[in-house]
Amino acid sequence: MRQVGIVGVGHTKFGKWSGGTFTDMLCAAAVEALDDAGVKLDKNHGIDQVLVASMGSGLVNRQSGVASALVDTLNLRPATAETIENGPASGASAVKLGYMAIASGLCDAVLVVGGEMMRVISGWEGTDFVATMLHPEAEYNYGLTLPAFAGMFTRLCMEKYGVTEKDLAIVSVKNHENAMNNPVAHIRLVPNLYAITEDEDANVINPYVADPLRVYHVCPVSDGAAAVLLCAMDKAERFTKKPIKIAGIGQATDTHAVAEREVPTDLLAVRLAAQKAYKMAGLKPEDIDVAELHDAFQILEIVESEEVGFFERGQGHIAARNGETKIGGRIPINTSGGLKAKGHPLGATGVSQIVELVRQLRGEAAGRQVEGAKAGLAVNFGGFGNNVVATILTKEEE
Amino acid sequence: MRQVGIVGVGHTKFGKWSGGTFTDMLCAAAVEALDDAGVKLDKNHGIDQVLVASMGSGLVNRQSGVASALVDTLNLRPATAETIENGPASGASAVKLGYMAIASGLCDAVLVVGGEMMRVISGWEGTDFVATMLHPEAEYNYGLTLPAFAGMFTRLCMEKYGVTEKDLAIVSVKNHENAMNNPVAHIRLVPNLYAITEDEDANVINPYVADPLRVYHVCPVSDGAAAVLLCAMDKAERFTKKPIKIAGIGQATDTHAVAEREVPTDLLAVRLAAQKAYKMAGLKPEDIDVAELHDAFQILEIVESEEVGFFERGQGHIAARNGETKIGGRIPINTSGGLKAKGHPLGATGVSQIVELVRQLRGEAAGRQVEGAKAGLAVNFGGFGNNVVATILTKEEE
Repeated sequence: MRQVGIVGVGHTKFGKWSGGTFTDMLCAAAVEALDDAGVKLDKNHGIDQVLVASMGSGLVNRQSGVASALVDTLNLRPATAETIENGPASGASAVKLGYMAIASGLCDAVLVVGGEMMRVISGWEGTDFVATMLHPEAEYNYGLTLPAFAGMFTRLCMEKYGVTEKDLAIVSVKNHENAMNNPVAHIRLVPNLYAITEDEDANVINPYVADPLRVYHVCPVSDGAAAVLLCAMDKAERFTKKPIKIAGIGQATDTHAVAEREVPTDLLAVRLAAQKAYKMAGLKPEDIDVAELHDAFQILEIVESEEVGFFERGQGHIAARNGETKIGGRIPINTSGGLKAKGHPLGATGVSQIVELVRQLRGEAAGRQVEGAKAGLAVNFGGFGNNVVATILTKEEE
Repeated sequence: MRQVGIVGVGHTKFGKWSGGTFTDMLCAAAVEALDDAGVKLDKNHGIDQVLVASMGSGLVNRQSGVASALVDTLNLRPATAETIENGPASGASAVKLGYMAIASGLCDAVLVVGGEMMRVISGWEGTDFVATMLHPEAEYNYGLTLPAFAGMFTRLCMEKYGVTEKDLAIVSVKNHENAMNNPVAHIRLVPNLYAITEDEDANVINPYVADPLRVYHVCPVSDGAAAVLLCAMDKAERFTKKPIKIAGIGQATDTHAVAEREVPTDLLAVRLAAQKAYKMAGLKPEDIDVAELHDAFQILEIVESEEVGFFERGQGHIAARNGETKIGGRIPINTSGGLKAKGHPLGATGVSQIVELVRQLRGEAAGRQVEGAKAGLAVNFGGFGNNVVATILTKEEE
């Protein structure tokens, strides 16, 4: 099979987008990625296909065919264009489909742009929008939301494995610390661990969102876009940057209704997706140097770090306590700041994770660099774990 | 490159869906396609990926991750799943991406299901929903709609090429006649040509929708779903039905804003997409035995029949007048009844066109069979021609 690499990355500053329309925001990330790859937007651009990852372009922004709008705005016509939706895992799904397009031989270069403009709607509308990814008859119509599921899941993990609120806060503080060195992160402040856990005012500055989850245990609502330019490894010489190889992609679905799962504290789709990605890459968990895990809620980073094989079951929170997931630790997780501090514009997230891994493997992650990183893993989590994509990137030997 | 074929097709009755939820409707088409291929829904089903094509699952049905819901309902977990959106060309785009998944070697069998449940919203809401595919700043926000564009486009073709209202009606009547023999078509009646054009009550029974377009010159609003099971030709022996080969796929984008096009009566993306598909298939327009062209408005069938090379520019309406596009004519078009009479559930349409071609090439199109058909062409039209996919299917020699 034809090998595929990444030759360009782009990323808007996550947070409140104030630079124009939804298409403009996608464009900003795309232009940066094309520029990074040294692509000139003339007749010889060589881009065959544009894939946009978005969950809410229709639902929130009332725009269909946004990929067609983007390909035209970028002046890439007649390149083909599609929009890909897989809830909050839309980004990694689009990268996967771009990979397939190149591996098939039908395309040589595919631009993948993920984006979401969520801050045009109010808080409860945002929660409701996100909840549309739940089971429409078994969950959504009873008023269930993602924070509600995450709260229940956290409670179970607390009872079964002894995870504490402070463990969640430790993961959160680590990610906020990492975000301080990521110029595109949404939230650039580091909460004080004592103040948000043990201080007498902890309940005030870190109130419950969905018991036992507090504000500092869940991701913010962000606008943002991220872009990667994929190309066939055998066509990479025409780009400026040396490609980072996509070594493995794994994906798996789980029951759509969370209540139907055999072990409610497992994230089966994460495990299966990671296993497939390792197999395809010919790597093991211990070969990974840096990881971006989908911490829409802090408990997810902990359990995912177990499901992907970094730690034994029930040991993820202990590892976090011991600093093993910090930069400089055994396996740095969410060096970008993660969804918690970098932000989580749904369709952008899976692409943003890949952008961070590319920067780490290139050695361009100033201030948050994992020294000598050669292999990175990203986990992008759709629904409440009903559709998960794991992607492994590697730096080719010099 | 690995060859890809179609081994199963399924199709709900287009019209008003009353069989349950949106997911249920997708399921109905999917199960029929799997059954047609002889797939048993046990552990050995062998389906690697499910792609759902839909434009309005979020916007109209307020459901995200519908592909994840479908893969679970069909009990195909942990098969992967994504939703593909490219306006009314979502269906053909999903077939293309399914083709790439198999051609890449990462998948052996991919289920593609297109569907739209539009009749849950009112008439003007439906028109507005469809209009979300127009340019958000240059068109949609000024109140432009698809029928408005089609009306202006028709007027230009009338002035330039001498197309008449009666020509549109002739195309319409032909498609309604074909639909009489298609059990899954939405509208099963044949309008009387004299009554809708020359009778003194013609204005009453065939009123204007968007001058010069009348009711019988535009497609209805339909619910419906269609499904195809794609598989690698080298893995096809395990399925019941002999595969129909996907011989060529072409796609092209055009300016998103219609006003920016050089020649307003051209459909450039149709021409480019068809040229690419012919090239990939190694075929010419005269090799095609049967075609499904995207007649959301009757004028589109006429102009598309020119752009794909069946007729000279400006001659499509003459050919229709002369019966050359009827079954038995030189090149039968829209034997299924087309969007006009079979219906146009947006995301379903591109898949539905492929289903009809498979039935024709298998010799299973009872009552509307094109005898000896060996090659078929489908054109699926996104936006007002800003993103078009052409697909060529061929019957392998015995």
